[in-house]
Amino acid sequence: MLLNETIVALATPPGSGAIAIIRVSGPDAIAFTAPVFEGRTKPDLHDQKSHTLQLGYIKDGKRIIDESLVSVFRGNRSYTGEPTVEISCHGSPFIQQEIINLLLRQGCRAANPGEFTMRAFLNGKMDLSQAEAVADLIASDNEAAHQMAMNQMRGGFANEIHKLREELLNFAALIELELDFAEEDVEFADRDQFQELVVKIQKTLSRLIDSFAVGNVLKKGIPVAIVGEPNAGKSTLLNALLNEERAIVSDIAGTTRDTIEDEIAIGGIGFRFIDTAGIRETTDEIEGLGIQKTFEKIQKAAIVLLMIPSVQALNEDDKQKMIVEINRIKNRFPDKPFLVVVNKIDLLKEEEIASLDEALGHIAGTDSQFISAKKKIGVEELKEKLQTYVNTGALRNNDTIVTNSRHYDSLLKAQEEINQVQEGLNMGLTGDLLAIDIRQALHYFGEITGEITTDDLLGHIFANFCIGK
Amino acid sequence: MLLNETIVALATPPGSGAIAIIRVSGPDAIAFTAPVFEGRTKPDLHDQKSHTLQLGYIKDGKRIIDESLVSVFRGNRSYTGEPTVEISCHGSPFIQQEIINLLLRQGCRAANPGEFTMRAFLNGKMDLSQAEAVADLIASDNEAAHQMAMNQMRGGFANEIHKLREELLNFAALIELELDFAEEDVEFADRDQFQELVVKIQKTLSRLIDSFAVGNVLKKGIPVAIVGEPNAGKSTLLNALLNEERAIVSDIAGTTRDTIEDEIAIGGIGFRFIDTAGIRETTDEIEGLGIQKTFEKIQKAAIVLLMIPSVQALNEDDKQKMIVEINRIKNRFPDKPFLVVVNKIDLLKEEEIASLDEALGHIAGTDSQFISAKKKIGVEELKEKLQTYVNTGALRNNDTIVTNSRHYDSLLKAQEEINQVQEGLNMGLTGDLLAIDIRQALHYFGEITGEITTDDLLGHIFANFCIGK
Repeated sequence: MLLNETIVALATPPGSGAIAIIRVSGPDAIAFTAPVFEGRTKPDLHDQKSHTLQLGYIKDGKRIIDESLVSVFRGNRSYTGEPTVEISCHGSPFIQQEIINLLLRQGCRAANPGEFTMRAFLNGKMDLSQAEAVADLIASDNEAAHQMAMNQMRGGFANEIHKLREELLNFAALIELELDFAEEDVEFADRDQFQELVVKIQKTLSRLIDSFAVGNVLKKGIPVAIVGEPNAGKSTLLNALLNEERAIVSDIAGTTRDTIEDEIAIGGIGFRFIDTAGIRETTDEIEGLGIQKTFEKIQKAAIVLLMIPSVQALNEDDKQKMIVEINRIKNRFPDKPFLVVVNKIDLLKEEEIASLDEALGHIAGTDSQFISAKKKIGVEELKEKLQTYVNTGALRNNDTIVTNSRHYDSLLKAQEEINQVQEGLNMGLTGDLLAIDIRQALHYFGEITGEITTDDLLGHIFANFCIGK
Repeated sequence: MLLNETIVALATPPGSGAIAIIRVSGPDAIAFTAPVFEGRTKPDLHDQKSHTLQLGYIKDGKRIIDESLVSVFRGNRSYTGEPTVEISCHGSPFIQQEIINLLLRQGCRAANPGEFTMRAFLNGKMDLSQAEAVADLIASDNEAAHQMAMNQMRGGFANEIHKLREELLNFAALIELELDFAEEDVEFADRDQFQELVVKIQKTLSRLIDSFAVGNVLKKGIPVAIVGEPNAGKSTLLNALLNEERAIVSDIAGTTRDTIEDEIAIGGIGFRFIDTAGIRETTDEIEGLGIQKTFEKIQKAAIVLLMIPSVQALNEDDKQKMIVEINRIKNRFPDKPFLVVVNKIDLLKEEEIASLDEALGHIAGTDSQFISAKKKIGVEELKEKLQTYVNTGALRNNDTIVTNSRHYDSLLKAQEEINQVQEGLNMGLTGDLLAIDIRQALHYFGEITGEITTDDLLGHIFANFCIGK
């Protein structure tokens, strides 16, 4: 990972399109590109000003590879903080490949995944948590995930951590200074002020740590288990939800259609629908094992949707059976929002709906929704109900939310160390012992913002980026 | 297709990547983008100079959608010849969609396929044949196709046609002037000079029309039929050819892997390999029908490769059978280059190879190549042989080549009219009769360059473009 190398990569998605962008960054970005570019107004790229665009030809000797728009970013005024050239060429995979090969022959090296962003971090254009937010931003596929990534990219909680770290660093320095004057028994660091700071840090850490549960689930999508027999209409329900919400997404991101198969954004929040096998009672041992697995799956969900088929002409006996069956399932998940969905109500008479509704009313702590996926009845109401189960208070208040499990781990470790410091203060520990825990806490703070990193850590973080970012 | 509308589209391939570009073009491109962009150095986009880039936020009210690089092209100094704004945003499908939706709400209209390039044509930035070359350039997946598209985009034969059209137009005007003075029997247009021009036009047209056969096949890839029993090693051969040539392509264009499954660029020229069923003699009626279809397929190929299995310990009887069988197939395609490929020669003893070679020598007009796909023996030689079958003289001499069947049709029609003019001259026809055929020829010339178009024609041409181009 040498910063004196100049790297090149395709920055736009692979495949055919109107335009593709090839990014070159490093000390020789301009020197390596100039010989293969003949600008229309400034034939020599060296003469082109920073932050300007110019049309010209990309040439391999006399052979013209493409007519391209080339932009130049000089000094550290680029994304990476290094001289950068961006070539906006025709979006043919063949042309992309020819230009990249040409630049490789000029002396560039093919960029590793995330290397442009890693350079931005190493060149001080962003801290580590901001760099990580770039990948989250690109991966975000709903408003909540997008907003959290954007907050984090703009500084987010790292600013807070950074400030607390500075204050803590001050105290650490004072306390360590005391050690130099150990015989004289002086106290440079005001213990009361220090106590206040520690409490402030503890509060901040608790708040951030608590936010992770929300953040993590919002980032990955709220997991919703759909329970019900195969004929209960689970896929009809999914289609009804998808029909309205998916159209916009797939207009543009046609290629990602498969991967969002069961993820639906409702009101800007991603919901991940997990289809589960039926969970009727059984005496069969093997089937029992399958049902056990289903229960484990449901246990991981945040919300349980129970689909039941709409029954025509429900008699008292059926009702009792239904109530017992629903109760049996519901009682397995006492802590989760539990919603009973009855589909195909367009086939029921009004009195049949009333009768079903009345029966469901007998099940304590259970919400129900009658829908007709086909006739679009009740679908909007179902969406609204799903949203009420999600605690998005923090999101709406624009509070900082921790979404990254690496940050979460570091915060937990920092909390542990700060609690040690707190205890030490209460016990009247001497400065040399306090200093050890403070240093540890500082270390974990530094890990979040990247003030303390290792090659391993960086390698691990940026390996998950796409090439060209 | 109103030029006073401002259009917006994603210009980069769909999907996730580091960067995506959203293109806005039309009279209000800057006016519609300015309210949703807050630049870092020039907060108001109206203050940003043409051909410059600026970092800033794309905002929907107070909500930040993305941090983006925005470039502005003023007046007619853009691709489309209209004010244009290009937003280089983070390559998340969600962000792309949010920004496009935002611009639609600002008053933009979603662009139709090829609408940016059509506007470039309508605004006089390129002629119609150049606009058509843009789509060919993006679709080009080998050097020959790329070079032909690039030549055409840079003017290509349209310049020639344009000049000839001007000269012809001059004569047409003079001849039509004669009509006004019909009673006086004057000749403004020198018949000898006109005769010379007609001959020049005929030569040019013949050359261009003849080039189409080469151009069309180079553009689409040279069709090569691979004939042989299923166990003859056809897929091994394809893999051996692919192994070396595909690696570079698939590094970048991972997603197009499937579509180039059987197209391989050898020495910069695309070869399309058509796998065919076996064609042994049969008395079965249904199988006979299948074989008939296979023969039809082969008839469309430019080159026939016959794969035969390498036979150990070939006796005289086998040899005779083999020769008869190969002759039987070869004689069906007397006009096509015919290459016999023997695979797995690594399993044969030297004398077995010599014996096979000697046997193949008895078949007149047949070339043969011994290979071992596994051990990479003879694969390079096979590629060289394939290349020798392709007439690329015109390509290497940088001659203009017609690749577009629309142009081909217009050239043929123009030729017909010019021949009529020639005949008319020979017969000493009067000016009024000559003028009719000249006008027709002018019409077909104009169709190529777009000096004469209809909405239907434009719609048909640009419908094949991708959106955003």
